[in-house]
Amino acid sequence: MRTLLHPASEDLSLPHILYALGDPLRLRIVGQLAALDESISCGDIQVVHEVPKSTGSHHFKVLREAGLIRMVPQGRRILVSLRKADLQARFPGLLETILQSYQRQ
Amino acid sequence: MRTLLHPASEDLSLPHILYALGDPLRLRIVGQLAALDESISCGDIQVVHEVPKSTGSHHFKVLREAGLIRMVPQGRRILVSLRKADLQARFPGLLETILQSYQRQ
Repeated sequence: MRTLLHPASEDLSLPHILYALGDPLRLRIVGQLAALDESISCGDIQVVHEVPKSTGSHHFKVLREAGLIRMVPQGRRILVSLRKADLQARFPGLLETILQSYQRQ
Repeated sequence: MRTLLHPASEDLSLPHILYALGDPLRLRIVGQLAALDESISCGDIQVVHEVPKSTGSHHFKVLREAGLIRMVPQGRRILVSLRKADLQARFPGLLETILQSYQRQ
């Protein structure tokens, strides 16, 4: 199985993070993960069931490469979680404020 | 002279704003404007002198259409300013937090 690469916390880039969140579907994925506080299977993300599989995979990849989510293969599933602590360490308050704005929409 | 359209404060879209800020050059333009608190000529934005004219125009357009900046033609110049109050009204704390993260980079 191929390795899923994740940037280190100290390498997270602000424009990269904002770009990754600058899409309605990716914002929804992050919004659902933020409400959970635990890992869930990719297949349990609502957005996945509304778009072609390749589109879903692309959005997860963009979020993972920006450092917003962690994806861990477990058997035939991939568990996904929001990297809240890493994001908070690199850019304090950023994710929280964006999620508050997301709730206001 | 063609009219430069600006979205109303209540129509500002979170993913659109984040997408517009998800680019290093556009972040720098917004960072320079945030430090000023007044309108300046497009030609006084540093980024403009580092990229082809068409690239600069594109970045201003993306920022304007996302509602981040206001552009007002004045004679042969275009004055540009950050829409701080409109952004604060629609998404309280968002721009401020992103600018704090920008300073930490």
